[in-house]
Amino acid sequence: MEFSSKKIRDLAVGDRVDCYFIIKRVDLKTTNSNDKKYLDFIFGDKTGEISGKLWEVPQDIETYFTEGDLVKVRGTVTSYMNNNQFKVDRIRKASEEDGVIPEDFVESAPLKNTDMLRDIEGYLQRIADQDIHQVVRMALEEKKDKLMFYPAAKRNHHAIRSGLLYHVLTMLKLGDQISKVYPAVNTDLLFAGIILHDLEKINEMDSSELGIVKEYTLEGNLLGHISLGVKNVDRICDRLNTPEEKRMLLQHMILSHHYEPEYGSPVKPMFLEAELLHHIDMIDARVFDFTLAVRDLEPGGISENIFSLDRRRIYKPTF
Amino acid sequence: MEFSSKKIRDLAVGDRVDCYFIIKRVDLKTTNSNDKKYLDFIFGDKTGEISGKLWEVPQDIETYFTEGDLVKVRGTVTSYMNNNQFKVDRIRKASEEDGVIPEDFVESAPLKNTDMLRDIEGYLQRIADQDIHQVVRMALEEKKDKLMFYPAAKRNHHAIRSGLLYHVLTMLKLGDQISKVYPAVNTDLLFAGIILHDLEKINEMDSSELGIVKEYTLEGNLLGHISLGVKNVDRICDRLNTPEEKRMLLQHMILSHHYEPEYGSPVKPMFLEAELLHHIDMIDARVFDFTLAVRDLEPGGISENIFSLDRRRIYKPTF
Amino acid sequence: MEFSSKKIRDLAVGDRVDCYFIIKRVDLKTTNSNDKKYLDFIFGDKTGEISGKLWEVPQDIETYFTEGDLVKVRGTVTSYMNNNQFKVDRIRKASEEDGVIPEDFVESAPLKNTDMLRDIEGYLQRIADQDIHQVVRMALEEKKDKLMFYPAAKRNHHAIRSGLLYHVLTMLKLGDQISKVYPAVNTDLLFAGIILHDLEKINEMDSSELGIVKEYTLEGNLLGHISLGVKNVDRICDRLNTPEEKRMLLQHMILSHHYEPEYGSPVKPMFLEAELLHHIDMIDARVFDFTLAVRDLEPGGISENIFSLDRRRIYKPTF
Amino acid sequence: MEFSSKKIRDLAVGDRVDCYFIIKRVDLKTTNSNDKKYLDFIFGDKTGEISGKLWEVPQDIETYFTEGDLVKVRGTVTSYMNNNQFKVDRIRKASEEDGVIPEDFVESAPLKNTDMLRDIEGYLQRIADQDIHQVVRMALEEKKDKLMFYPAAKRNHHAIRSGLLYHVLTMLKLGDQISKVYPAVNTDLLFAGIILHDLEKINEMDSSELGIVKEYTLEGNLLGHISLGVKNVDRICDRLNTPEEKRMLLQHMILSHHYEPEYGSPVKPMFLEAELLHHIDMIDARVFDFTLAVRDLEPGGISENIFSLDRRRIYKPTF
Amino acid sequence: MEFSSKKIRDLAVGDRVDCYFIIKRVDLKTTNSNDKKYLDFIFGDKTGEISGKLWEVPQDIETYFTEGDLVKVRGTVTSYMNNNQFKVDRIRKASEEDGVIPEDFVESAPLKNTDMLRDIEGYLQRIADQDIHQVVRMALEEKKDKLMFYPAAKRNHHAIRSGLLYHVLTMLKLGDQISKVYPAVNTDLLFAGIILHDLEKINEMDSSELGIVKEYTLEGNLLGHISLGVKNVDRICDRLNTPEEKRMLLQHMILSHHYEPEYGSPVKPMFLEAELLHHIDMIDARVFDFTLAVRDLEPGGISENIFSLDRRRIYKPTF
Amino acid sequence: MEFSSKKIRDLAVGDRVDCYFIIKRVDLKTTNSNDKKYLDFIFGDKTGEISGKLWEVPQDIETYFTEGDLVKVRGTVTSYMNNNQFKVDRIRKASEEDGVIPEDFVESAPLKNTDMLRDIEGYLQRIADQDIHQVVRMALEEKKDKLMFYPAAKRNHHAIRSGLLYHVLTMLKLGDQISKVYPAVNTDLLFAGIILHDLEKINEMDSSELGIVKEYTLEGNLLGHISLGVKNVDRICDRLNTPEEKRMLLQHMILSHHYEPEYGSPVKPMFLEAELLHHIDMIDARVFDFTLAVRDLEPGGISENIFSLDRRRIYKPTF
Repeated sequence: MEFSSKKIRDLAVGDRVDCYFIIKRVDLKTTNSNDKKYLDFIFGDKTGEISGKLWEVPQDIETYFTEGDLVKVRGTVTSYMNNNQFKVDRIRKASEEDGVIPEDFVESAPLKNTDMLRDIEGYLQRIADQDIHQVVRMALEEKKDKLMFYPAAKRNHHAIRSGLLYHVLTMLKLGDQISKVYPAVNTDLLFAGIILHDLEKINEMDSSELGIVKEYTLEGNLLGHISLGVKNVDRICDRLNTPEEKRMLLQHMILSHHYEPEYGSPVKPMFLEAELLHHIDMIDARVFDFTLAVRDLEPGGISENIFSLDRRRIYKPTF
Repeated sequence: MEFSSKKIRDLAVGDRVDCYFIIKRVDLKTTNSNDKKYLDFIFGDKTGEISGKLWEVPQDIETYFTEGDLVKVRGTVTSYMNNNQFKVDRIRKASEEDGVIPEDFVESAPLKNTDMLRDIEGYLQRIADQDIHQVVRMALEEKKDKLMFYPAAKRNHHAIRSGLLYHVLTMLKLGDQISKVYPAVNTDLLFAGIILHDLEKINEMDSSELGIVKEYTLEGNLLGHISLGVKNVDRICDRLNTPEEKRMLLQHMILSHHYEPEYGSPVKPMFLEAELLHHIDMIDARVFDFTLAVRDLEPGGISENIFSLDRRRIYKPTF
Repeated sequence: MEFSSKKIRDLAVGDRVDCYFIIKRVDLKTTNSNDKKYLDFIFGDKTGEISGKLWEVPQDIETYFTEGDLVKVRGTVTSYMNNNQFKVDRIRKASEEDGVIPEDFVESAPLKNTDMLRDIEGYLQRIADQDIHQVVRMALEEKKDKLMFYPAAKRNHHAIRSGLLYHVLTMLKLGDQISKVYPAVNTDLLFAGIILHDLEKINEMDSSELGIVKEYTLEGNLLGHISLGVKNVDRICDRLNTPEEKRMLLQHMILSHHYEPEYGSPVKPMFLEAELLHHIDMIDARVFDFTLAVRDLEPGGISENIFSLDRRRIYKPTF
Repeated sequence: MEFSSKKIRDLAVGDRVDCYFIIKRVDLKTTNSNDKKYLDFIFGDKTGEISGKLWEVPQDIETYFTEGDLVKVRGTVTSYMNNNQFKVDRIRKASEEDGVIPEDFVESAPLKNTDMLRDIEGYLQRIADQDIHQVVRMALEEKKDKLMFYPAAKRNHHAIRSGLLYHVLTMLKLGDQISKVYPAVNTDLLFAGIILHDLEKINEMDSSELGIVKEYTLEGNLLGHISLGVKNVDRICDRLNTPEEKRMLLQHMILSHHYEPEYGSPVKPMFLEAELLHHIDMIDARVFDFTLAVRDLEPGGISENIFSLDRRRIYKPTF
Repeated sequence: MEFSSKKIRDLAVGDRVDCYFIIKRVDLKTTNSNDKKYLDFIFGDKTGEISGKLWEVPQDIETYFTEGDLVKVRGTVTSYMNNNQFKVDRIRKASEEDGVIPEDFVESAPLKNTDMLRDIEGYLQRIADQDIHQVVRMALEEKKDKLMFYPAAKRNHHAIRSGLLYHVLTMLKLGDQISKVYPAVNTDLLFAGIILHDLEKINEMDSSELGIVKEYTLEGNLLGHISLGVKNVDRICDRLNTPEEKRMLLQHMILSHHYEPEYGSPVKPMFLEAELLHHIDMIDARVFDFTLAVRDLEPGGISENIFSLDRRRIYKPTF
Repeated sequence: MEFSSKKIRDLAVGDRVDCYFIIKRVDLKTTNSNDKKYLDFIFGDKTGEISGKLWEVPQDIETYFTEGDLVKVRGTVTSYMNNNQFKVDRIRKASEEDGVIPEDFVESAPLKNTDMLRDIEGYLQRIADQDIHQVVRMALEEKKDKLMFYPAAKRNHHAIRSGLLYHVLTMLKLGDQISKVYPAVNTDLLFAGIILHDLEKINEMDSSELGIVKEYTLEGNLLGHISLGVKNVDRICDRLNTPEEKRMLLQHMILSHHYEPEYGSPVKPMFLEAELLHHIDMIDARVFDFTLAVRDLEPGGISENIFSLDRRRIYKPTF
């Protein structure tokens, strides 16, 4: 067959290919000039996204495809408004015989989610203070299932399958290492803050099991994950009868971890572990974004302006 | 007797007077030049504050006076650093025979607190939605006793005895009037938001029964009255099984009522009643501060820069 | 006839309809691919706007249509860049026999303009101070004719026919209600400030009698309605020999009503009525924008980011 | 006589001197420790200011001295809070026989005011456009008398006798020179803008004939010199029937000359001469402040933080 | 021949013309609808830019044209998205016989570069301090060749051929004139600061000999022309053994000339000549931008919002 | 003897003690009331500072004491403006027999400076890239002597003897630990950036061997340690012929390490190690300030507003 198969990142204008893609979005539209219907797709695989068009739409398939479908497509790469676009010639849903699974077509954390959860539970074991330990255990237990696949954001840093789990685990490792430099750090508080700080993103956003977020939830919009986090700890502490000071310190860490009011924190860190939590969160987000920014660059190359990095351009050293 | 009695606002340099004052602060200090001990006071009455010094301190009274004491003092008004100061010749605690009560020497809301509470309960009656009604009723019931005397702030607007009660009542009147202009306003939500928005100031600050706040509480410092308010509504709604949407809307009103992130609101109002709550809160605070700013001015006079009003100077028209 | 008639808000992709529209904008253009001329329209009715294309343009009608024309069009609704678009098959100007009038095809204030003016004059009657009364009466008299149809803005809040009149009247009602809560408010000053504050928008913008603004005027660009308002009051007070203090207070209210320097106010309010004027203006603008934001939402729905509301998304409660 | 005479800038702790000073401020106060009255002065001469105390105050002179008095004082220079202070032994008003005049004891512009006015009128002659010429002539004529002594500010740049005149003249020279580099500049507009831009400071502040400003006027507080300037040009243009465009451009230059909204300009410059006016104003203010900042420094020295220069420290080169 | 020739600024929709253009950008693209290749150009001449399309692309010319080529094109002016566009019918590279040179098709400074350099060297001669003179001479000598054609920016002010040379010369003229008003200005420092302040833009940006900048260099991105300028002066002063203070003052002028930290200056001007350098730089940039903004306006016309002028609209007076 | 000896932190009003102090500042002043001379001291020891007064000053000791002297003083602790003050009865310089050394009376880093330097050199050994290694070695070698005692700041974090050394070492430890979590980090670059980033503080500030900074140097004021650092690396790389890219990356790390323009960084980090350098710097500064803030608090206590921590109050948990 003349059609080769490529990853989205490798597609070039003019390529004629057979590929498996995930449908990340699909809309039925009508052309401007002659009222013909067409399907407007966003396809994705592990390496990126590309928009696609199917110009001839038999009526019976107008609503046949939906988001999250794994499909096999044949077509040509064209250019539109300086971006690659995929002109679909044929498209069908992948079947069992194709031997492909959706998980292979979405970007995921580089570690296995069950391993990550086990490692996080290892850190949980190291929280010696029993009051704090119980709160964190219960919070983690309740969210465990969704944590397996949730991303850490709709877009920006860690917006990948199991991204939230990966973010939390890496932060725990960081917190552990930093505490070795500063022995006065209370790792019970720090580990607890790290595990709890973003947990309510699971209620703030609505994610499919592929880690794709379509929308914020209503409570996400009206209250935000920080206030949801405070409420969640409150509820758990009520049940566990957690002493007042510990409850307040855990809530304060959640409340202050974005640091700046305009990023959603109404108070700034007032004890050392809350301060460290913020910096650890920042470092892990930035390492993720810097790594992504240079992933496709040649050594010595410089990126476009990266929105999530204050529109900076990032350089990849040659050595 | 040669000594007259005056209100603090009327004292002038050179006056020699007998007055009753509340002690708002008292410290034992030592003079710089000759190591003599003296008592350093801040005295107050309904009309203002004045600092005072007692230069000869018999050892047995070094710790005799304390904040909140109502005292009778005799002395002279001097000037120090361009401010009036009170040089104390004699001082004693007021006794029953003096026929004075502390409440008459602190600034209070212009309405009787029992009347104000009754009026607020009248507005509560008008909340027709039974879910919302129950939440507000329980919240109000729990705070009722302290609400009788709490100020609305440590300083700035409504920092007077029963100031919080007065602020809430006036806001309810405003909300009622504004709703007549815009019939689409849901007064159930608006009245609820007004009653609930600042209730947790009672846990944020530590006030004496005279409405004088010495300190913020630890939870006030670590969490702030806005987050405390969200938690409080959560706890009550858990008990009452309030439907999810109503719970969220009540919490959103509390969360967004300061409007700007740098004033403590992590989200901005997302429905009309939350938006109105913010403006009503602002108007009532500003009317209070403008009224205070011109209280002692002659018509045609202009105030000094007022800190709480963005350092503006306020003008009192002649007509 | 197979073609039905619909309001713009109700049009759906694929609809084939006969409608009356107002032409809000029309340009003769040439297509990119084959140099053919076409007419590019923005059509409007009471419910919204839609862009339209006429692809075959006989030479004699190239300049036949103009903004403000009421036309009858037949055509199909298509989709372009995710927005509805109207492909025109036939178009002609409406004639008397059609029995339609332009006023029915532009969005207007919900009250009759003659009624609104009469009500505003009622508030004018309540200004007891004769100096202030005369200034406001003359200012209103001079602008009365244009006030009948002017919008309050080119876009954003109250950008509708007679929107300025409606904005002023609603603010007067608000001012009246708020003054009942604070008896110290001088309603002479407040009502005067409300009626005068935006009057010079009539000279700042150039509006057709349908309330559609194409452009700011030169003096609008160079000086702005606030400075024009100060000058206008100056001119009137010169003629009426208004006492100096009253003149200054009226001018100060105009000057400070946007409150923030970056929104055009070089001074901040320095007396109570100027402060209230600002808040009343804000409330009425916000109520308008919130109402608009939820107008087409289902209960429980949430809007897109609204530009004029700091890019907030607005929620419509289900109850 | 053992007492020498010195200028304020040259006084050192321990000096015992006979000097003539201007009284810039005087208050009758009472000492903190023993209720004794004393007079608290701020004295000034051409070289600076020093606070002074007269500890023994015969009753008949308690109100004898007033601001602006030229006095002869004998006393000692002491140090208080790291600043020099003048302990007065003797003080009397200067009489004719002393042969001193107040003007010699206040800081004044370095040029004679009559010469400066004559030079400004020379620039006025160069405004060829008769409409603009007439407006500027009338505005200048009306303010001429006060312009002879007014400072340009209460404090900060050009806060000296005849400082406003000096500021305007230097700006005209600058405008003239800059226009030689850019021949397209319309010097009629630029010279007019320079002469008019600050004229209403004369109504904004209340200055004695010595160029000392005690207070802003009410219209200065409520409207500010920029709005006063716009009104003033309006009034003059009404009388002269100035064509509309020229009136607007003159008013726009006044309105925009502070450039930033937070410094009082509601619009930014919209034509070249308005833009240049702003920069010329800035340059002249900055040259004045830099010159003052290094006046008393040794070469190679660095100043304290200068408030009017964004708290910068200014360096004086050695060459 | 039926085809006339026009400048880009004069082209109107429907024109059919033969023109010489410079190619400012060229990309091979594929159409969206039918996968056909086309060439997408940006053409330029002294009067502006226009995008162009060549729809039929013989395979042998797909990569034949490149940026900076001077070409002869025949085609039609169409309209796309409200902008003119050029539909190319024929295109070929210009040859010697055409008698045209690239320099005539890019916008250049209005003075001859050799004349400008000579004038700058004249100012250099006037730097009397031999230490400073030597530094500036060496810096100028090293950059002379590139200075002949470099623009002062990639876009915004002075983004034209020889724009940097022109900017520096005009600033020197300004500095000279301003110094006549303030005799205390050290023109040695000021002239040196002006010549040095932007020289390292030559290493910050990569410009063709036509003055067209495609990219910032790596050191331009990582360090910026201000830090490069400080380093450059350091290197030269090392070689010349320049006294320490002079070296620091020259470096301080470069470092502080953008004034605001957010525009790249880590320190603010700390002596008069550094302060003046900033204002002179601003004035010359603004005069350039204002002049450009009104160049194509009719008298009495007003521009669109100009990005480089804080989005202001600029007015062109009628007189 | 009746006089005990105490550390400054332990002094209470009324204490009569014999102590050794370091003189941190001394001025000869004259009293306000009676022109008597006195010596005004700031004394310090390892635990804090206290101001002191010697009221009777024999003429021969007026200039006898100087900053940095270690003295023995006898006197009484009084209170002035709510701060403790030391009334000196006797004072003499400490002599050898006293058996005390200045180093014991200034606050120093908690590790021995020779140990710290050795550890830093250990990290230096781990920089494998020989170009980078050589640059860092030379820079460190040149500053080694002063690094032994320099503080990292005039005030704020690490403003203690050998504070700079301590700050650098702790950052290296942090960088080492963080790199273990992110294996992609180039520790050659990161360690180099950490060692170099603040080295030029040694030329920015003028410190005594006790680590007390009186003043910023002229080059510190005019250029700042960031620009000095860039120049320093430039000079060393010139000598060592360091490849261009490595030179630029080292300079970029210095230039960007304060991150925000308003804190002195004209560019933001453009590669991962520069980004990490900033966060590591922040963490170490914050840990220092938090530790200091709670040092004297009881568990459960809350500090005053800490200036260097954005005026936050810091809480010390009870567990």
